[in-house]
Order: sequence, then C-alpha cells, then structure tokens
Amino acid sequence: MNHARGRVLPEPQRRLLADGRQIAYFSNAETPPEPGVDRREFTPRPTSSPTHLRRDPRTGTWVMMAPARQDRTYKPPRNMCPLCPDETGQSSEVPGTSYDVAVFENRFPSLSTASVGSDFTLPAPITDLEVQAPGYGRCEVVCFTDRHDGSFAELTVDQARLVIDAWSERTVDLLSRDGVEEVFCFENRGEEIGVTLAHPHGQIYAYPFLTERTAALLAEAQRYHAASGRDLFESILDAERSDGRRILLQTEHTTAFVPYAARWPVEVHVYSNRKVGQLAELTEAEADDLARTYLTVLRAFDALYDEPLPYIASWNQFGPTVDGRLHAELFSIRRSRDKLKYLAGSESARGAFVTDKTPETIAAELRAVLPAIETVEQGA
Amino acid sequence: MNHARGRVLPEPQRRLLADGRQIAYFSNAETPPEPGVDRREFTPRPTSSPTHLRRDPRTGTWVMMAPARQDRTYKPPRNMCPLCPDETGQSSEVPGTSYDVAVFENRFPSLSTASVGSDFTLPAPITDLEVQAPGYGRCEVVCFTDRHDGSFAELTVDQARLVIDAWSERTVDLLSRDGVEEVFCFENRGEEIGVTLAHPHGQIYAYPFLTERTAALLAEAQRYHAASGRDLFESILDAERSDGRRILLQTEHTTAFVPYAARWPVEVHVYSNRKVGQLAELTEAEADDLARTYLTVLRAFDALYDEPLPYIASWNQFGPTVDGRLHAELFSIRRSRDKLKYLAGSESARGAFVTDKTPETIAAELRAVLPAIETVEQGA
Repeated sequence: MNHARGRVLPEPQRRLLADGRQIAYFSNAETPPEPGVDRREFTPRPTSSPTHLRRDPRTGTWVMMAPARQDRTYKPPRNMCPLCPDETGQSSEVPGTSYDVAVFENRFPSLSTASVGSDFTLPAPITDLEVQAPGYGRCEVVCFTDRHDGSFAELTVDQARLVIDAWSERTVDLLSRDGVEEVFCFENRGEEIGVTLAHPHGQIYAYPFLTERTAALLAEAQRYHAASGRDLFESILDAERSDGRRILLQTEHTTAFVPYAARWPVEVHVYSNRKVGQLAELTEAEADDLARTYLTVLRAFDALYDEPLPYIASWNQFGPTVDGRLHAELFSIRRSRDKLKYLAGSESARGAFVTDKTPETIAAELRAVLPAIETVEQGA
Repeated sequence: MNHARGRVLPEPQRRLLADGRQIAYFSNAETPPEPGVDRREFTPRPTSSPTHLRRDPRTGTWVMMAPARQDRTYKPPRNMCPLCPDETGQSSEVPGTSYDVAVFENRFPSLSTASVGSDFTLPAPITDLEVQAPGYGRCEVVCFTDRHDGSFAELTVDQARLVIDAWSERTVDLLSRDGVEEVFCFENRGEEIGVTLAHPHGQIYAYPFLTERTAALLAEAQRYHAASGRDLFESILDAERSDGRRILLQTEHTTAFVPYAARWPVEVHVYSNRKVGQLAELTEAEADDLARTYLTVLRAFDALYDEPLPYIASWNQFGPTVDGRLHAELFSIRRSRDKLKYLAGSESARGAFVTDKTPETIAAELRAVLPAIETVEQGA
C-alpha cells in the first residue's frame, strides 16, 4: 500500500513546559500567536517510568497500570482551567495570550517515553503468566481552540481542518518512533462519560502494542481478503453506498453512515471515499471535505436532542506497515432524551452488545435533523 | 474433558405465565412454597422473532438488535415490583405468596426461542457483509429471593447455594438445546450501572454464538496449551497461589484473588480448586464452599466503602464440548468513594484499559475489610 503524504502538513512552534514536557502550537495564521513561557515550578518528571503494562494471561491483551493518575485534575473551576491560554505562565498547561490548536504531553500520562529507551519492544506472545513492561508510549492532549466554552461542533471549517492537520502531524511523528505500534486520536465529550475538563479537547495515545480492537479489525480484514480477494473496508463502503438506507451524508470525498451492525444507540462512521491509511495521506481537498462532513455529523448529534450529546469520536488510522483504512467512529451512550445506555453484563463481561434501536432508525433520526443544521457550505 | 454431574440438582416446579413464558420455582424446603397462577391478561407473544442478530462485518462479532426493549420496565415504584411474589396473580411476573428462587423467561428478551425452530444454526464465517439471523436463544431472569429489599450479599449460605443450584440446572438445560453455544449467568447490581429493578435478581443469556470474550479466552488457552503443554487456567490458579500477593481467600475448595492484570478498580476472580467446566459439575461440598466464598467476596465489596458497591458478577462456564474452566469474575466501576471509572476512548473504542490501582493495592484494600466481615462460618 502506498502511504504517500497527500498534502503539506503545518509545522508547529515547538516549546518545552517547565517540567520538560513537549508542547506544540499549530496555526494557519500569517502571524501565529506567540507561545508563552511556562513559569510554573514543577518537580521534575520521574526518571523511572511511573506506569507499567501487564499482559492479561487470559486474553493476551495489555492493560495500562497508571497509579499516579488517581490524583489527576478533576473538574477544576473555570478560572483554574489547565487548557485555557495563560499569559502569566503560572496557572495553565498552555502558556501564551492565545493559541489556535495546542498539543502537549499529558501531565498524568498512562504511557510515556520519558524514561524508556527508544529501543523498547514488548515481548511477543509468551507462556509466562506474569509479564510486565514499562509504560512506554505517549499520551498527548489536543486543545481544539483557546475558547473555554464551546465544542468541536462549533469550530469553523478552517479550525476543524487545523485540528485534522494537527492530528495528521502528530500521527506521522508518533508512528515513526521505534516501539510505537498504534496511534489513536480521540475525543470524549460530556460529563456523562466521565470527562473531567470542560475545555474542548481530545487526546492522543501512542501505544506500544496493537490494541484489541485494531487487532480484531485487521484479523477480520485478512480473513475476508483471503476468502474473497477483496478489501474489507472498500467492500463495506460499497455495500453501504449501494444499500443506502443508513447513509447520512455523501460528498465528493467522504461518506458518513450508520454502520450495518451499530452497537450504540447513536453511531456514525465516516470514511474517506479514496482508500488511505491515515489522515496525513488526504489531499487538501479531501481534508477540507472531511472537516466539513465531520462537523456536520457532530452538529447532527447535538441537534438530535437539542442539547450537547455526550459522545466518543475515535479515529482508526493505520500504517505505514499495516494495510487498514482510515475511518472515524463516532458514538454516543444516550439512548433517548432522558436515558443512557449502560454497559451491562452482556456487553462489559462478554463483549456481546444488545441495542434498542436498529441502525436504520438511528440513520432516519439523524437524517431528520440534517435540514435544520446550518449546512457548512452555506453557513460558517 | 469429563463433565460428569457432581451432585443431584434440584428439580424445580415448572409453570407457564399467562403469555406462555416458562417459570421455574426452586426450593430446598420440605414443603416448597406453592406457585401461584398468573391471572394477567396478556397479548400472546409474537409469532415472528421480535429481535434479530446482525454480524458486524468489521469484526465478525454478532450484535443483538432488540427494538422492543426500548419500552422495557424502567425503575417501577416499589408496589409495582414485577419480581415480588404476588398472590393475586395480577401484578407481578412471579405469582404466588412466596418463593425461594424463581427463574422465568424475560418479558423483553434480547434472545428468544419463541419463534425459531430448534434446528437453528448461525451462518459460519462468510464473505457476505450484511448478514442477519433471527434472535434465537433465551433470556431469563433469576430472582434470588422473594424479599424486595436486600441483595445477594445478604443471602444465607443455604440461599446462595440454592441460587448456585438454579444456575446449574438452567445452564445444563439451556446448553443441551440445539443452537445454543454459550450460557452466561450474571448479575448487575446498582443504579450506577443502569440497573432498573431494585429487587435482587440476575439474568441468564443463552447465546447462539460464542461471545467475543469467551472466544478470546479459548483462543489464548489454545495458544498457551500448544506452546507449553499446560492448561492455561490451571497455570493461572497455580501462579496466583504461589505468588500470593493478590489472594483474597483460599478455602478447601475455592480460591478468590485479584487477577494479575485486573482491568477494573475493584476486580476479583473466584476459581474452584478442582478443574471443572461448569457449576453443575461441582460436588455438594464444593458448591457449599463456593457459596460461602462468593458471599464473602460480595460482603467485602460492600464493606469497602461502607455502602452497597455497584458491581457486575459474571460466570464463565464451559462445556460440554468446550475445554474451559469454571470461574467467576466480579468487578466494580467504583474507583474511589466518590468517583466512578468511566470507559473513555481507549477502553470503549480500542479495548485498551487504563487502571488507576494496581491489583496488589486492590487486594490489600479488600483484605483489610475481611476481618470486619462476619465470617460465614461463624455467623449466619
């Protein structure tokens, strides 16, 4: 598979925070906001890894053990927001008077490169039952805007595109590091799903292993290819487009649909029409189109119950050595205006989902709110 | 593997509810409570399956689609509890003046045998992308006691043993049916995890497929056996017993421990010391011992924060044609007195868990409350 870069990625202004963590300021402005200086007094970061991984001997999956995170920042008051810009350099993670998009290493990371050599590799499948490894990898925080109030859905297309460019740059950088097997960009939105910081932000995990879900996707894609000679993700996109009942949006470069076997009461997948493995491969036109489609999906989410919908948005990215296909999965646990979907025994303990709404119903509900949304082309 | 029955299982009194659903009353009393007659007027159950399964083409896992469940009973007032005994036969799912343990088919099932022939089989792995099947299987509700208030942890050993016997009988019966691949007994306790009926009860799912989690356990067990010649679950039990740091309880016939790679802030696994595949294989002494240990673990859960702990308790049972080992998994989403563990992006979307507490810490916290628990041997 060809993983050629599809466009020029922005070069951020790179700085260090007081304790040595990296921060990158992304901007498309002709005169980007000037990064500030972090003037906080920090104890230096620990020189031994504060977290570790354990392999679950029953399933072979890795669990991240991060005891220090028990003390992480929990619903701070607005004037203590660690993601707002701070010109004093005293009270926030993002020094400066303003910024467009900022990405920095999480202060309470589950995974870190701080104390592990870059020659790190995880042990391959083994018969030892108690296998540990240092928590090598990286956890980054992506601030979508310097405005404390608001959400991704309220960004302009240009702002959303800048976030996509930041995700692209971070993914390329992190995947290029030895020992990083998977890079996962995601956003959790809503107190209902445990989000403890209101400021619009997402996270990036660079794992030293293939996650359980990614491994399952790739295994099924390989099985399907062996049986049919076809690409699984291409076939899924073709099938959804020709079925049509679950399509939410089709644009020149992207398709958004409720998947055939949606597990969540609200669930939408967004594909680029051209097969690429990751965000950095998209052309300018494709990245712009994806930003518009993604914003429209998020706005449809918020229009569904006339209030911000709690959601998780996750990016499936692959490569350079893995043959998967870029797509976003967005889902919510809200199953009606006043009820949440909880993961009960069948889901949590067995991975067997029960869903109350057919995917066709979900799609119809989302399509019904589309006309009310100021379409991005006409509006912002 | 020998799956010989380890003891005589109780024969319940079997009745039909007004709409044809089966109910079974279990008792060890010399004169068991007399089942009542369901006098409600019900529309007959639908003759076509109200639910269906869809195969997720991205992972090969089955999702249960149960649109009718959107209207299921939601936090009824106490005097409308559908699980309390009802001598009028007018207002509950369990007719009669009293009962010990009652098991009946769920009125809002995700899976049902009502309208599908017993020659049902699911399609094997295929290259079709949109595969549906009727929702064949069974969903049952297990009422642990006729007392509305209380919890499993407050049962006597004899009562807990009767529940174990009911689980045993139901598992043997359901697994014997053509088309049933897995039987899963579990309990969700606590509004925090979405439980909508306060009356102490659990559920049983009889799936027409191996669940994702069970398939993962068996795959790893096979890989381990091929590499080491040893039984994975036997090795895990040996390793936990010789390590010792995470052991909660060791009795003549059972062992309870926090697993080496616990994913949840409170997590305990309970094994029978002798390798058996399912609850029905336990001898009288083993089943009694398991009831005592299980109760002690649940009481430790409630002692942890001096209030009822929300938890999911799930039974891994195997056989007769599958070589797995009976064990219970109990876990909670409570990560401190006032905080819940939410499944954020890494867990929900990637299956990669981050945990704040090491398993050794969890074990120490649980061991610390053990002395305060009225031990079952001395007390009840």
